[in-house]
Amino acid sequence: MSSTFGTCLRVTTFGESHGDSVGAVVDGLPAGIPLTEDNIQTQLNRRRPGQSAITTQRGESDSVRILSGVEGGHTLGTPIALVVANGDRRPSDYDSIKGIPRPSHADYTYKVKYGVCASSGGGRASARETVGRVAAGAAAEAFLRERFGVEIVAFVSSVGGISASTPMLDGADSAASNAISQNSIECIDLNTLTRGMVDAYPVRCPASESAKAMEAAILDVMENGDSVGGTVTCVCRNVPAGWGEPVFQKLEAMLAMAMLSIPAAKGFEIGSGFAGAAMRGSEHNDVFVKKQNGLGTLTNRSGGVLGGISNGEPVYFKTAFKPTATIGSHQTTADYEGNDAVLKPTGRHDPCVVPRAVPIVESMAAIVLADMALAQNARMR
Amino acid sequence: MSSTFGTCLRVTTFGESHGDSVGAVVDGLPAGIPLTEDNIQTQLNRRRPGQSAITTQRGESDSVRILSGVEGGHTLGTPIALVVANGDRRPSDYDSIKGIPRPSHADYTYKVKYGVCASSGGGRASARETVGRVAAGAAAEAFLRERFGVEIVAFVSSVGGISASTPMLDGADSAASNAISQNSIECIDLNTLTRGMVDAYPVRCPASESAKAMEAAILDVMENGDSVGGTVTCVCRNVPAGWGEPVFQKLEAMLAMAMLSIPAAKGFEIGSGFAGAAMRGSEHNDVFVKKQNGLGTLTNRSGGVLGGISNGEPVYFKTAFKPTATIGSHQTTADYEGNDAVLKPTGRHDPCVVPRAVPIVESMAAIVLADMALAQNARMR
Amino acid sequence: MSSTFGTCLRVTTFGESHGDSVGAVVDGLPAGIPLTEDNIQTQLNRRRPGQSAITTQRGESDSVRILSGVEGGHTLGTPIALVVANGDRRPSDYDSIKGIPRPSHADYTYKVKYGVCASSGGGRASARETVGRVAAGAAAEAFLRERFGVEIVAFVSSVGGISASTPMLDGADSAASNAISQNSIECIDLNTLTRGMVDAYPVRCPASESAKAMEAAILDVMENGDSVGGTVTCVCRNVPAGWGEPVFQKLEAMLAMAMLSIPAAKGFEIGSGFAGAAMRGSEHNDVFVKKQNGLGTLTNRSGGVLGGISNGEPVYFKTAFKPTATIGSHQTTADYEGNDAVLKPTGRHDPCVVPRAVPIVESMAAIVLADMALAQNARMR
Amino acid sequence: MSSTFGTCLRVTTFGESHGDSVGAVVDGLPAGIPLTEDNIQTQLNRRRPGQSAITTQRGESDSVRILSGVEGGHTLGTPIALVVANGDRRPSDYDSIKGIPRPSHADYTYKVKYGVCASSGGGRASARETVGRVAAGAAAEAFLRERFGVEIVAFVSSVGGISASTPMLDGADSAASNAISQNSIECIDLNTLTRGMVDAYPVRCPASESAKAMEAAILDVMENGDSVGGTVTCVCRNVPAGWGEPVFQKLEAMLAMAMLSIPAAKGFEIGSGFAGAAMRGSEHNDVFVKKQNGLGTLTNRSGGVLGGISNGEPVYFKTAFKPTATIGSHQTTADYEGNDAVLKPTGRHDPCVVPRAVPIVESMAAIVLADMALAQNARMR
Repeated sequence: MSSTFGTCLRVTTFGESHGDSVGAVVDGLPAGIPLTEDNIQTQLNRRRPGQSAITTQRGESDSVRILSGVEGGHTLGTPIALVVANGDRRPSDYDSIKGIPRPSHADYTYKVKYGVCASSGGGRASARETVGRVAAGAAAEAFLRERFGVEIVAFVSSVGGISASTPMLDGADSAASNAISQNSIECIDLNTLTRGMVDAYPVRCPASESAKAMEAAILDVMENGDSVGGTVTCVCRNVPAGWGEPVFQKLEAMLAMAMLSIPAAKGFEIGSGFAGAAMRGSEHNDVFVKKQNGLGTLTNRSGGVLGGISNGEPVYFKTAFKPTATIGSHQTTADYEGNDAVLKPTGRHDPCVVPRAVPIVESMAAIVLADMALAQNARMR
Repeated sequence: MSSTFGTCLRVTTFGESHGDSVGAVVDGLPAGIPLTEDNIQTQLNRRRPGQSAITTQRGESDSVRILSGVEGGHTLGTPIALVVANGDRRPSDYDSIKGIPRPSHADYTYKVKYGVCASSGGGRASARETVGRVAAGAAAEAFLRERFGVEIVAFVSSVGGISASTPMLDGADSAASNAISQNSIECIDLNTLTRGMVDAYPVRCPASESAKAMEAAILDVMENGDSVGGTVTCVCRNVPAGWGEPVFQKLEAMLAMAMLSIPAAKGFEIGSGFAGAAMRGSEHNDVFVKKQNGLGTLTNRSGGVLGGISNGEPVYFKTAFKPTATIGSHQTTADYEGNDAVLKPTGRHDPCVVPRAVPIVESMAAIVLADMALAQNARMR
Repeated sequence: MSSTFGTCLRVTTFGESHGDSVGAVVDGLPAGIPLTEDNIQTQLNRRRPGQSAITTQRGESDSVRILSGVEGGHTLGTPIALVVANGDRRPSDYDSIKGIPRPSHADYTYKVKYGVCASSGGGRASARETVGRVAAGAAAEAFLRERFGVEIVAFVSSVGGISASTPMLDGADSAASNAISQNSIECIDLNTLTRGMVDAYPVRCPASESAKAMEAAILDVMENGDSVGGTVTCVCRNVPAGWGEPVFQKLEAMLAMAMLSIPAAKGFEIGSGFAGAAMRGSEHNDVFVKKQNGLGTLTNRSGGVLGGISNGEPVYFKTAFKPTATIGSHQTTADYEGNDAVLKPTGRHDPCVVPRAVPIVESMAAIVLADMALAQNARMR
Repeated sequence: MSSTFGTCLRVTTFGESHGDSVGAVVDGLPAGIPLTEDNIQTQLNRRRPGQSAITTQRGESDSVRILSGVEGGHTLGTPIALVVANGDRRPSDYDSIKGIPRPSHADYTYKVKYGVCASSGGGRASARETVGRVAAGAAAEAFLRERFGVEIVAFVSSVGGISASTPMLDGADSAASNAISQNSIECIDLNTLTRGMVDAYPVRCPASESAKAMEAAILDVMENGDSVGGTVTCVCRNVPAGWGEPVFQKLEAMLAMAMLSIPAAKGFEIGSGFAGAAMRGSEHNDVFVKKQNGLGTLTNRSGGVLGGISNGEPVYFKTAFKPTATIGSHQTTADYEGNDAVLKPTGRHDPCVVPRAVPIVESMAAIVLADMALAQNARMR
């Protein structure tokens, strides 16, 4: 199931960085959902390189075409094929890496796994593969919005050591909040955050002081031929209680798989996450209270899930991304035969992946939630 | 696919906490692998409650029976059904929770999802479900050991705020190591760690000073009718390069899913993890060097994976577990109708899940690796 | 997915003929369905050997135990594990076949596939594996009956060359009917047939003259140390329009897979089947007419499916079974090394599998329909 | 899994008859297999309408484009996306069917299932969907040929009541052969048949007398505004012993599913098939004999499979297709509201689908075999 994600909603992506095109087939989406190329293009544009001074300048226009599954602006319930042509190909950029696997890239492992190498090196481990995910995610999101009013907003919560604070969605318990935001200087409210607020900053951190510091950090690594990592936090609001399949396909398990499947991801936490591992039960437990649509919880350290199933509270989680492996400095390493070799700076790359990872995180979240929505419906309650 | 995990190796678990029995069916394991009930019992005994003063005293003997798929001490290549009877059932323990969903438990979400409740509350969200995982994992491990010499060792790396240091498997770069172990007092060598070393301490942290402090912390919460969270770190050695399916079934993605599917898990990180998000590319990249079996890397911040595929270096990762939701104190919460209610302490529970989570983490890691081994073999290189 | 069938409803069977037990895990059935061991036992008893003079005398009692997923006589929505112990094992019966693969049995192909052999020869290719299917099918049927009033009835439609006529459910067009029943002497009405009517005859053909001739044919081959093949026809009534997944999981495709997965099955046809291939469109097309629940068709050559989706008319199909491979005569064949060898009659066997195949066909039909029902529900119409 | 077929090799097709394009994504094919657009085009041309006087004149050029997964004429091991633009679209052809579901078409069931209708009526139930199958099948076949020398040849074995004889691949036993070919006038040797021999006749029956009669029958129904059904027989040679997954994914079960998933298919039989159901065990059993690559069988009534696993003998099977539902005469039927309605002849259609079904049958067979080859390899013998 390598290039396919999901059970009831199945997303299959295809395409090499330097082949004809990239895209996705989205199968299982209900019929009658409003969907146009424009809906999808909006998210693709947010993923596209060259949006600002702090992203790579590879000039892809990334225009999506819907090949099937949509007629008259609505889904037919049949597979939706989405294609984006690869425009700005420069395979010659990769000439210098022939014979030398790039450190912390997938060149070496792809060679071992397949016995062959695509001209672009790491094959499908390219960031360009995520075009298909974002296109598919936009379709999944159209369904979630139309049928359930689900809202998904992601943002950059840290770059290098600089982080913006995100309380555990309760406000009541500052000790707990502090546990996850000790280095932060500003606080972001996950209950009201919008994509507009996020996009107001090139670095996509909706807190002006933090954003300024993050931007400076990125410009600094750019100047020094280096790169830097970061984290993306995502909140999903209006998720009905009851989504997520018990045991192995728990909602948090599928989100973790989805996030760790994004290139450069190294960590995932939901709700209290790693900070929760340092807490006591009496301070971590979310007690129930009466809310408008049934029961809710007073606090939300659980991150909106209990036993793998959504409980009606906002679902929020954070994903860690390592610094971009491609850097603008010489690296002393080995060639495929094990001989000493020096890898020269090459190609174009982002000094920090997290601003462009924001729509990718949202897309994968949408795909997971839509799959879980359909799975719950199959249960016939 | 709720209760089934894996594609080439498929593990299906079944059983409620207070039903007749729990177990698993393991399908897809090659024929001819040595496997006996004793092999499986060894790991089940490590998961069993009542092993020490710091675990629950529910007295399950947890004896496994192999119903199929094994003949003459070897696998037949057919489904292996494994069953463990539920011995020490006390459903009356749960009488007091009728009508009140336990905070941070799955009682409420199971009710919403299924419309019915098992008498034991959260149905399959019980820790007892993991008996099937451990039994199945032992079978997967037998295969990995026999065919590849894979060694999997997990241990408790923190309890509450107390953590033992684990360097990023290289030693060369103390700055990086510090990034993930700033609070630690002792260092554990992932290259040489054995299960024997881990089991020498009831808390399963193979570092005597840390272990002592962790044990004290657990006894403290027990006395105070509370609970505490923690983390489990796991290393998988001798994993051949080439395992892990590109794009969605990346090795780290499947490990993340597997770990987040364990009850009480809230976070996952591989290699440098969240600490890596604070680093620069020049310090994070693992350059290649010649090693005995081809290329290796000088450092291992990647955690043994590149682009979702194992690179031949040890795979290591950490999982965060929240504090046990069941606590020995009164909790002011709401009943199913939303009325104020007080939940009294009830049943038996572990004050801290991580010591018993150790074999569960190992088991899920084994299931993931075995599935990826078979998937790579299907590729026909 | 070898031992697992289905997507939304997943049935996994396990067990060797001469191991500890056989059984199944049924995952994905909705909660709240009435289900007891008695419901399941009823169908298992119809599959059990030793029911009459024309079936094998292996004396299995085949008592089912529900290990999980059911509480208080209702399903919990969690995996239902069903186990039947293997009672009357006589592995010594198989001593004589050591070294010689039985003709038209799976001994040889299992050996090639797995490299090992279970002591009973063909491993999971045993008729005993179908115990798990029947147990699982009974659970699926309980759901279909409770929620949709679906009725599934199968019967023996031919033994050797002797067949009972089954019109294409319309009566109107005798030419068409004749096309599929030219050798038949009696006619069975699929609209009113019940299991009671079927079980009134040991051979399970609910047409007295045909049944008598079939029984005589079976007794004849028994006396002569031979065996004979036959066909089973099955009708599923009250199947709502809309079940069956377009393209690859068409209702007829899944039924075909399900039927051909039964040991000894060699053919499948739905509606007009092979006879339809000899017809013209003008005589084969089923024109629409107004019926009580919307549109229906005047005739039903389609067998209740259009484009892979049920149309509300009865679904009916026929499965061909070859003669039992185990016969009571000497066979001149080769041993595993290719040397000439003579296989002596051995073990106990059915001279004709079709009477006992009736509940197996019904069970597989129920599993397919339940899976399709849930899949359609996931579609969120 | 509606539009995806296979487990280790996964083929996903997409596209409506009157949308932008149709195609497929083929995932799981090993790297390094020679594959070009020309390889694929060859089979697409055999499926294309307008090849002769007896097929529909819709003038599709059906040129395939490979979007991904192939570089330098070889597969990369990554998903292969294949697209064919829809050229000769005439949606106005379908104006007359608005409001009236075509008899024995999927218009009605698609409407019930999805609640919406594509402008072309039955949505994905169109013959045009098979373009994706044929493109994908050509890729699967390239792998089977390269790695195993597998040869797959299908042909028209009957049209209406006219059939060509195909012995059960043994020649030795004329009684058995007669059982399946009593009406035939000529005999086709499955051991030596080639696609060239098949394509020598427009009707794709490689027996000149039968072909002549079949062609006449098709021209006759064309003249009379009618259509006629037929059967396609397929042989797969050089299939190694050991392919096919026991229990549910038996080789014959997957072939049956694959064949019944083709539009208009109503029946499937492998080896002796329905004729075998009339035989005795002593005449049906295939005894073993020493052959060049190990054991073989003297006769081949089994059709190359034993217990769901290939035994090294040629695999052969037959698929029944109903007469084309679209006919050139008026049909008295009902509209969607149940009112009486007369459907006038419309659009362009094949009077008989079987000549063009030949490459579709071959393609689905190739997809099944390639999936089974990879699954067996995953088994790690």
